[in-house]
Amino acid sequence: MTSFTSPQATKPLDASELTYTYTTDPRDVPDEATAAKSKDTICTDHMIIARWKKDIGWSTPELKPYGPLSLLPTASCLHYAHECFEGLKAYRGDDGKLRLFRPDRNGVRLQMSAERISLPSPPAEELKKLILALLHVDGAKWLPKHRARDFLYIRPTIIGSNSQLGVQAPTEALLYIIVGYMPRLDMMEGGKRLLTSPQDMVRSWVGGFGYAKVGANYGPSVLATQDAASRGFHQVLWLYGAEGECTEAGGSNFFLVWRRKDRKKEMITAPLDDHLILDGITRRSCISLARERLGDELEITERKFTIGEVLEASNENRLLESFAAGTAWFISPISHIRHREHHIDIPMGQGDGPGEITGKMKGWLGDIMYGRTEHEWATIVSEKE
Amino acid sequence: MTSFTSPQATKPLDASELTYTYTTDPRDVPDEATAAKSKDTICTDHMIIARWKKDIGWSTPELKPYGPLSLLPTASCLHYAHECFEGLKAYRGDDGKLRLFRPDRNGVRLQMSAERISLPSPPAEELKKLILALLHVDGAKWLPKHRARDFLYIRPTIIGSNSQLGVQAPTEALLYIIVGYMPRLDMMEGGKRLLTSPQDMVRSWVGGFGYAKVGANYGPSVLATQDAASRGFHQVLWLYGAEGECTEAGGSNFFLVWRRKDRKKEMITAPLDDHLILDGITRRSCISLARERLGDELEITERKFTIGEVLEASNENRLLESFAAGTAWFISPISHIRHREHHIDIPMGQGDGPGEITGKMKGWLGDIMYGRTEHEWATIVSEKE
Repeated sequence: MTSFTSPQATKPLDASELTYTYTTDPRDVPDEATAAKSKDTICTDHMIIARWKKDIGWSTPELKPYGPLSLLPTASCLHYAHECFEGLKAYRGDDGKLRLFRPDRNGVRLQMSAERISLPSPPAEELKKLILALLHVDGAKWLPKHRARDFLYIRPTIIGSNSQLGVQAPTEALLYIIVGYMPRLDMMEGGKRLLTSPQDMVRSWVGGFGYAKVGANYGPSVLATQDAASRGFHQVLWLYGAEGECTEAGGSNFFLVWRRKDRKKEMITAPLDDHLILDGITRRSCISLARERLGDELEITERKFTIGEVLEASNENRLLESFAAGTAWFISPISHIRHREHHIDIPMGQGDGPGEITGKMKGWLGDIMYGRTEHEWATIVSEKE
Repeated sequence: MTSFTSPQATKPLDASELTYTYTTDPRDVPDEATAAKSKDTICTDHMIIARWKKDIGWSTPELKPYGPLSLLPTASCLHYAHECFEGLKAYRGDDGKLRLFRPDRNGVRLQMSAERISLPSPPAEELKKLILALLHVDGAKWLPKHRARDFLYIRPTIIGSNSQLGVQAPTEALLYIIVGYMPRLDMMEGGKRLLTSPQDMVRSWVGGFGYAKVGANYGPSVLATQDAASRGFHQVLWLYGAEGECTEAGGSNFFLVWRRKDRKKEMITAPLDDHLILDGITRRSCISLARERLGDELEITERKFTIGEVLEASNENRLLESFAAGTAWFISPISHIRHREHHIDIPMGQGDGPGEITGKMKGWLGDIMYGRTEHEWATIVSEKE
């Protein structure tokens, strides 16, 4: 398969050219509770936009007041799902500093997603510079230094903006970066409860695009998620194939800690090689930290595993812990899986908190994100005073 | 699976309430050649918009000047592909009248697509009234009576417009209808040439949403289509499953006419029951006309058939004709399929025109669309003088 490549002669995206137009109507900053309750996502004062045209390349990126986009009704993002995005957070540290967590990986993934959906693919390094520039301006105001252990959510987005109703690769596109508040989702009381996907719904498939962060993966999943919610579950555990392979838990990666039949303790998650699931940055980080720090006591395995294996382990009392991992959900303990007529309970930790391994993951990652330990995965944001 | 239903108490879409705000800046009407050459789709002077909110229902629909939509950067259509659409044409008849072809079927399909992608589902009857109202205003100017056998393209669209970055069913949406020009695509010189889909790309899958006219079906298919185009093919013939079932030809339904091994002449196309393909209105109409008018000489079959069967038929000189059927492509003869190392030539008719059955389909449908025969499938548009 050939992938999308910009013609050589067109202008590359250049973050160093960023122009600044500051808002003349700065808004008030909501406290955490107000932000979490808001029906609409509250964004900061500014956003960054860059326009792309196939024959010209990228425009000068602009930092400008947050506000509506103007799109012709024929814009390809409104008809053919020519859209992809990233999600990352800026964490206010215990030391008052603002940090990004592995933003380079988001940049690489956005490129891959953009190529899959025939959109232009901005260099990861330029994307990171633009994110840092936006946080430099809005970070200190919208996440004040005293709000340690709180975060902002950053959403880089690329949409096809050409006005042509024929189904084709967009000849015009818009890259924009917005920053807003997202509720904290890792403290679900009693743990997350998952419902396995219905037999007539499949989220992604071999040869599809389940690995890419494209809009086309999300909207179609909502029907099953709504149904699960109406039945008292937090997310869908998406199964794949006749054997019911466990793939993703809603919009996050699914981890299980169990004793194998040989009594060895194992942390297991679905593999990336068949391109069914998102290559989660939290997922990748969990695997890497576990291998580095828990390799002696824990087997860390990426392989296909089925809901039948989970059921069997449950019946044999071998299930130890489970968690969902992702940027939005962070590390969320899972306490229950409902599969057809089967109720699978999964142990939680003391006082209904995370189990041992889940707690360690959460602690180690949180330490890096909030600057309690120094680590190469954290990038400190320079903020305007 | 529960499907989306509006709460009882909210306001239904009511076409009879349509308000009219006419443009003060009417544009010039391009001739057919200019319209076909335009890089951007040229739309008529007006469009229709209705807004929906989950708790309130539908706003009064408005006919207003064609122009850009204003969407917040957080709008769910820009991130999660909460979008679906329809495509239909208004045909200028030999008698000077403007006709729609089976618009009720588009209405029913839009409802189905909207439900699949968790958007509100407007009643088919109201949608039809709105389309007729827009054509009443713009039809006579934008497709003058003397341009017989020409058409306008109508694109009803629904997008999620709520400003919430959480993945959820949209709580706000926009229905809009635009009318513009599309090039004529049924006269490909020498017939359409198809390339079978690459082994690592699948368009739709059992349990997915290939049957719905949602954006998520289109953008992800462009990469393979571009690759096919760069190799000199017009469209991708999408195969499914280990056996290589023939499903769709690009954005249209795929028909084959062949002699079976028992020498019976058969028109065959993929079935709807596994929900892999779009329930095309042209497809449906071909099957119905063929059953009614050709039932004595032709077996008409909807069943799974594989590229292997097509190859075998080709090797045994049993292939008679093939065509793609859809609103955009109308009835386009297919002359060649390339599958891996196999070159499959398919006979065309006299002078490289459509074959016998293909030509009959095209003729019969055209007669209904352009008013050369009266038929219940045609709806005459009342036009403002």
